[in-house]
Amino acid sequence: MKKRRILIVGGVAGGASAAARLRRLCEDCEIVIFERGAYVSFANCGLPYYIGDVIPEESDLLLASPKLFRERFNIDVRLHNEVLAIHREQHVITVMDRTTQQTYTEPYDALILSPGASPLRPRLPGIDLPGVFALRTIPDSQQIRAWIQEKQAKRAVIIGAGFIGLEMAENLHHRGLSVTMVEMAPHVLPILDDDVAYYAEQHLLAHGVRLHLGDGLTGLSHDEHQTLVVHTQKGLRIEADIVILAVGVRPETTLARDAGLQLGERGGIHVDEHMQTSDPQIWAVGDAVEVQDTLHRSALLMPLAGPANRQGRIAADHIMGRSSTFRGVQATAICGIFDLTVATTGCSENILRKMGHTHYEKIYLHPSHHVGYYPGAKPIHIKLLFDTNDGRILGAQAIGEAGVDRRIDVLAMAIQMNATVFDLEESELCYAPQYGAAKDPINLAGMIASNVLKKDLPLAHWDQLESNALLLDVREMHEKTDAFCPDALQIPLSQLRQRIHEIPKHQPIRTFCKYGQRGYYATRVLLQHGLDAANLSGGLLSFHATHSRLHRT
Amino acid sequence: MKKRRILIVGGVAGGASAAARLRRLCEDCEIVIFERGAYVSFANCGLPYYIGDVIPEESDLLLASPKLFRERFNIDVRLHNEVLAIHREQHVITVMDRTTQQTYTEPYDALILSPGASPLRPRLPGIDLPGVFALRTIPDSQQIRAWIQEKQAKRAVIIGAGFIGLEMAENLHHRGLSVTMVEMAPHVLPILDDDVAYYAEQHLLAHGVRLHLGDGLTGLSHDEHQTLVVHTQKGLRIEADIVILAVGVRPETTLARDAGLQLGERGGIHVDEHMQTSDPQIWAVGDAVEVQDTLHRSALLMPLAGPANRQGRIAADHIMGRSSTFRGVQATAICGIFDLTVATTGCSENILRKMGHTHYEKIYLHPSHHVGYYPGAKPIHIKLLFDTNDGRILGAQAIGEAGVDRRIDVLAMAIQMNATVFDLEESELCYAPQYGAAKDPINLAGMIASNVLKKDLPLAHWDQLESNALLLDVREMHEKTDAFCPDALQIPLSQLRQRIHEIPKHQPIRTFCKYGQRGYYATRVLLQHGLDAANLSGGLLSFHATHSRLHRT
Repeated sequence: MKKRRILIVGGVAGGASAAARLRRLCEDCEIVIFERGAYVSFANCGLPYYIGDVIPEESDLLLASPKLFRERFNIDVRLHNEVLAIHREQHVITVMDRTTQQTYTEPYDALILSPGASPLRPRLPGIDLPGVFALRTIPDSQQIRAWIQEKQAKRAVIIGAGFIGLEMAENLHHRGLSVTMVEMAPHVLPILDDDVAYYAEQHLLAHGVRLHLGDGLTGLSHDEHQTLVVHTQKGLRIEADIVILAVGVRPETTLARDAGLQLGERGGIHVDEHMQTSDPQIWAVGDAVEVQDTLHRSALLMPLAGPANRQGRIAADHIMGRSSTFRGVQATAICGIFDLTVATTGCSENILRKMGHTHYEKIYLHPSHHVGYYPGAKPIHIKLLFDTNDGRILGAQAIGEAGVDRRIDVLAMAIQMNATVFDLEESELCYAPQYGAAKDPINLAGMIASNVLKKDLPLAHWDQLESNALLLDVREMHEKTDAFCPDALQIPLSQLRQRIHEIPKHQPIRTFCKYGQRGYYATRVLLQHGLDAANLSGGLLSFHATHSRLHRT
Repeated sequence: MKKRRILIVGGVAGGASAAARLRRLCEDCEIVIFERGAYVSFANCGLPYYIGDVIPEESDLLLASPKLFRERFNIDVRLHNEVLAIHREQHVITVMDRTTQQTYTEPYDALILSPGASPLRPRLPGIDLPGVFALRTIPDSQQIRAWIQEKQAKRAVIIGAGFIGLEMAENLHHRGLSVTMVEMAPHVLPILDDDVAYYAEQHLLAHGVRLHLGDGLTGLSHDEHQTLVVHTQKGLRIEADIVILAVGVRPETTLARDAGLQLGERGGIHVDEHMQTSDPQIWAVGDAVEVQDTLHRSALLMPLAGPANRQGRIAADHIMGRSSTFRGVQATAICGIFDLTVATTGCSENILRKMGHTHYEKIYLHPSHHVGYYPGAKPIHIKLLFDTNDGRILGAQAIGEAGVDRRIDVLAMAIQMNATVFDLEESELCYAPQYGAAKDPINLAGMIASNVLKKDLPLAHWDQLESNALLLDVREMHEKTDAFCPDALQIPLSQLRQRIHEIPKHQPIRTFCKYGQRGYYATRVLLQHGLDAANLSGGLLSFHATHSRLHRT
């Protein structure tokens, strides 16, 4: 009997994952991976840290060699072999061996496309000047390292302040370069909402990173000293010894498109829930495919390693006759920014608005990552979005020095399982003084949101204040040291009951304190006295975060 | 209209939580907390760390003062006031003011009991000798600190190696004392399974803590130099400068029992899902009540701060006419042991066996807390228990230097939401190199368990080996450096396909490697060659953990 031949275009996460799974399911298939680069499986997520010398050796980035694939999985890996064309009717691909420039063909019974995505390189003047880099591969990182060393680079400009841009900022700073970032969006980390990104911006500024937001690259040039100059839409001229382009990636669809495979509305390869393309003998996985978000089932491109790995596994299963399905992406992501962590899962408010989702509410809270009495407690700034019809959790963002990954992972699991804020209220999570609190930040988020849905806690937001609202600051007098604080009637919570007659009866009262908790207590008192009260979610801290946006736009 | 009077017996977690919630729901109730001690709300979970000087100031432990309760919540806190009796028919309690020794009565419309639990102090010879302490209150911790300082204590013996015992071991070690532990159970942390507790034991031993397991206290005495001597069932005589009793707590039920309230089968106060006792005007919360576990709905005593806080809130809701219910306890717990973290949620295997649960399986895995190529990766030892009928997660235990709290919290949420191992396989969790892996330990656990349930991965366990089984060690030759390793046929995975004829055909083959992954690959190869193969879960690491038990019992 003829052996079944399964060919895979592209290694790294999706392709390698599919290949290994295929072998486990089928010992007597022939499996070949064609990789046009020099590495079948490398740690692309580690590249910024290799540039930053945090990961000391290039060899650390190599996850699996062709030898390992051969010995462990009996898989034939062909490096420097580029697949040029798919002849779907003949079930054959054309491959070029880049070392010999010879082309040859290979027949397949099943074909998996895992070509990945390539960094966007906008066609702007000077974009190809020496010293302008994008980062996707090990050779890219080698070139960047070499350039920094040879040119003794001191000034870096990073175009794009998404995850990769920020990781590059941290690592170049770590190598002693001064860093300037240019971001088209009005805030860093466009995947987040601006009122969460605010904390990241403050942290970057505190580390001396210069931010030019709401500004875009128009081109690059050399000045009279052959120094690179970055030009922006707002007319800035920024001198640089090195420029990093981190403005996103584009799915590699040439092969698929040329073969007449259906592409999706976002330009990625279209696949069904089994990762099968429009051709029933071809599957596609990883950054090149278009996926659906789990909440709205809308198409998106989401180049993430976790989903790519799962997709590889699912494609392999399906090829072997199993019914595994990809449930879509939830958009869980995390990024380190110096000693700060920012993470998100589910939808941002920005996305909810774009999707026309009207029945949602948001809360802000700023709990410590563990009890305050144990040394080293750090605040986590959390934004939680939930459905006001049923309490279902729609999305969460968090930022802080500790405990952020843990809380977002819990919320990622909660969203996956369709949990509501009432479930968060009841969660039983790890608690000892150095690890959390008897009321974990997750419980607090659930309690606050639950109070909102049960109408125990009417909520107000700094950017939606009624014009006739009276702000009531319930902090104690000794706390009033903020230079930057909205005008407000000041009645400390501890005096509120005695001084309640000072509060006007026929005006909306909007309470606040530093974080929001005492404002909630005050709102409860006022409501029970028949007043129209609501608490400003997140207190004064969220005022600052929101205010930054109001200034910006 | 007469104000509604709600009286609360006992402050700290449950009582204080109920009081604050009551005030938020009812501004014009009269709320009184009676606390026989000197503190209405203190951080009892912080006491070991105060003894260890990790928490430097006693004042750090005081969470809320009577003044704060009065000013913020208009709640009357009466310290040093002990409730002596409940006169249920008259709806009155008798209280003694311990400062004046005067008794008085107070009528109530609703009564909340939050008396807590007291440390067990077995009636053994010498148990009241000076230098023998239990730890529950701030005065206890003051006395322990004073004794250590005055006596220049060098040698501590801790009776009981549960969470409190281990926290005391860490903190006394931190203060420079040598520590010996005596534990009745055959392993430390009896709430865990022995094959997970094993790692904690190794860690304690590495820090110089002496362990006497499967041995109990029979009494204490003074020798001729007035040195304390601990006597054990196995006949040990251990000299000590200080002895800490950490053998558990007993619910404080005197008041409830004397008032004729129903007690539960475990000896705690019986309450319904609204925390209401057998008297409809009396509620009870916290360590004194008997709760149900969420999985089997069996009665248990589970003195944990998180559930106590939730119970206080629920009792308050119910008193105010709301229908909030307590969903039971899941038994999530965590403990720091020097720089190691151990945590658990749901059922242990030991509990499943006791409950007669037969359709479960267990897997062991030892993934890194983040990708290996990023510096600082630490292994997490995970044991996952799941139902073989439906894949539902039954319990999880984990231990390691980093990332343990996060994974157990994710699994706690998964268990709460009735997730299956198939859900874990599909979870989308935070990944960047310094935070995790594209296949997070949670995903790996799900994949392994899913493979087991789908019969792709027949599983074997070191303690259930068939007598005719052939062990197959598939590690590479250069790894064979373990002095302590079971006899096995050695065929490295990389040579397995070529040497498959060396493997006997009519014998069960049980594969293993270091962690279990390559053993799985090998099992897949063997199965597809028609052999009776199964993989030893957790590999050689789990052999060591299991072996330690086999030696022990």
